[in-house]
Amino acid sequence: MPEHVDAVALTAALVRCPSVTPKEGGALDLLTTILGEAGFECHRVDRNGTPNLFARWGKKGAAKSFGFNGHTDVVPVGDAAAWSRDPFGAEISDGWLWGRGATDMKSGVAAFVAAAVDFVRETPPDGAVIVTITGDEEGPGKDGTVAILDWMKAQDESMSVCLVGEPTCPERMGEMIKIGRRGSMTVSFEARGEQGHSAYPHRARNPLHALVRLLARITSHHLDHGTEQFDPSTLAITTIDTGNVASNVIPARARSVVNIRFNDAHSSASLADWLREEAAEVQDETGVKIGLAIQVSGESFLTPPGPLVDLVAAAVMAETGVDPVLSTSGGTSDARFVKEHCPVVEFGLVGQTMHQVDERVEIAQIGALKSVYRRILRDYFA
Amino acid sequence: MPEHVDAVALTAALVRCPSVTPKEGGALDLLTTILGEAGFECHRVDRNGTPNLFARWGKKGAAKSFGFNGHTDVVPVGDAAAWSRDPFGAEISDGWLWGRGATDMKSGVAAFVAAAVDFVRETPPDGAVIVTITGDEEGPGKDGTVAILDWMKAQDESMSVCLVGEPTCPERMGEMIKIGRRGSMTVSFEARGEQGHSAYPHRARNPLHALVRLLARITSHHLDHGTEQFDPSTLAITTIDTGNVASNVIPARARSVVNIRFNDAHSSASLADWLREEAAEVQDETGVKIGLAIQVSGESFLTPPGPLVDLVAAAVMAETGVDPVLSTSGGTSDARFVKEHCPVVEFGLVGQTMHQVDERVEIAQIGALKSVYRRILRDYFA
Repeated sequence: MPEHVDAVALTAALVRCPSVTPKEGGALDLLTTILGEAGFECHRVDRNGTPNLFARWGKKGAAKSFGFNGHTDVVPVGDAAAWSRDPFGAEISDGWLWGRGATDMKSGVAAFVAAAVDFVRETPPDGAVIVTITGDEEGPGKDGTVAILDWMKAQDESMSVCLVGEPTCPERMGEMIKIGRRGSMTVSFEARGEQGHSAYPHRARNPLHALVRLLARITSHHLDHGTEQFDPSTLAITTIDTGNVASNVIPARARSVVNIRFNDAHSSASLADWLREEAAEVQDETGVKIGLAIQVSGESFLTPPGPLVDLVAAAVMAETGVDPVLSTSGGTSDARFVKEHCPVVEFGLVGQTMHQVDERVEIAQIGALKSVYRRILRDYFA
Repeated sequence: MPEHVDAVALTAALVRCPSVTPKEGGALDLLTTILGEAGFECHRVDRNGTPNLFARWGKKGAAKSFGFNGHTDVVPVGDAAAWSRDPFGAEISDGWLWGRGATDMKSGVAAFVAAAVDFVRETPPDGAVIVTITGDEEGPGKDGTVAILDWMKAQDESMSVCLVGEPTCPERMGEMIKIGRRGSMTVSFEARGEQGHSAYPHRARNPLHALVRLLARITSHHLDHGTEQFDPSTLAITTIDTGNVASNVIPARARSVVNIRFNDAHSSASLADWLREEAAEVQDETGVKIGLAIQVSGESFLTPPGPLVDLVAAAVMAETGVDPVLSTSGGTSDARFVKEHCPVVEFGLVGQTMHQVDERVEIAQIGALKSVYRRILRDYFA
């Protein structure tokens, strides 16, 4: 009779690993041991110093393979003196487990690893169960989940579907499944005019007047009113900087950064075209040159309601009694990489304290989450 | 037979005094000696360490008194290595005299002191000739000409009219008399919103969106199209600063500075009212608090065409053969303080190299300027 993996104890053990990005902290080693003992074939697929773990139970190239994705790295502790418990102590009291990563997302990783191990031990499926865990989701992420997926492609490894175990519930366990995300892009504008004296603006070309004109236009433009599955796209100016201390001088240059979160009515390319057109118009009107540098964090994506989403929603309902909302809200996650590989959804526990001082997880949620994941595996392979 | 004062030699002697604001550098001492020897009653009216000189020939309280105003302080040398001559060497070559202050305005001071001394020696007038010279026109100016005027008021000293000897001619000697100036004010805006995540702008209050809206409105508003004697008023944004480096964060605060040069269709108070109204509207629309701090450098002023302006214009025409334009263009000068005391006009030589590397004055202009001043004195007391 195989032993069950205790997801709470595993969460605590992971919290005790000081795996602040990019440090592995012993977390992946611990998981490799547990998964290996349960018959998973484990590969460390580190890239450029970033630690990553790929683990598969069952045959490579199986017709049905269910994947999990998560990360063991955590954001820094911040003001350590402000914590009421040791951030790496995994102290348990009053039904909570405390520590950095308790919600984001060592509990999620512990829950899906425990569910996967119990599942393959007790009811070995006809197919494969795959676990992909990175040590860099909180950092630049260039050698994290992306590196695992690149490695998988090179090795002919694949997942039929994937579930990312990030916290997804705003307040109550079970209330939200994420089936996509808005895209995100950051645009840096640089306006280059001609310096001059404030008393003679007509002899200068004020880059700030051009920039203000451009920004006023793009912030007053409604990108959309939302789409069937997505909230409206948003655009936020995050900074404007000049650094001119002389009030009698019109500066030569000024810059601004704008962040756009966009739904499936747009792509980063269509938005870039729009911004370039607006900038060109203002440039024509003012004679001020406006350059754009665009950084795309991710396009919007959606796993439309269908078998995978139904499967996860039914499991959540059955284990928590809550009918989950299908949402595309929130910041980016590694699901934006996984979606290039296979259909992906995200479900996890309540993330209220993530990244905060005194991050903690309600212990009952860890067990519930493990049960949901276990049911998903059972129903997927049924 | 009294000796004539050589205005070129006096300019050179003044240039050799290193009187970078607020240093006296020996300049006022030199002038005190020359004026004192010619029978001027001299008073150093220094205030808070700023050196100032008041000198009167003739009786206090005379019915007619003609005043000159100028400054001996100079702006810093800047990049000394970029100068082709010693900035304090007063080197003469090819018809030019080189050095910091050569045009702004040691030549002007030398010309009016030489003209005044020659005039009172050769044709003692029935009235008073007054010379007021500050050592802080290029700096904050709080204890410069203002201090002399305050002292004069306390001492019952007065000028019937005054001529400021700043360079006034854009390119050609004699072409411009300044009979007023636009006012100048600097407005600092601070927008205080609520910080938040770029992905959820509706949960934050973006101070930059409010600031851009406000600045777009005030920069697209035409203040006026100029008035009879004045160019149009102008408004220039000189800086916008935020200092936010995180593109996923909406900042809490942002600031901007705007400089306004305004003609006699406005006052600093009327403009302040307008800006406060605009800011209040944007505050109502956005929920972002917008604070204003206003600094007024000077109101607009005008000495309307009349006896003083006619006198100066006729003297310029007679000595240079050029019919001068009456202008209100340019930055501020100490005339903005003098106009509170008596009618004031400005006339001086060509100021093209002022504040620049290799500042220099055409020697012929110094003699011409002295002749103009001398004729003005003769005609005024005729």
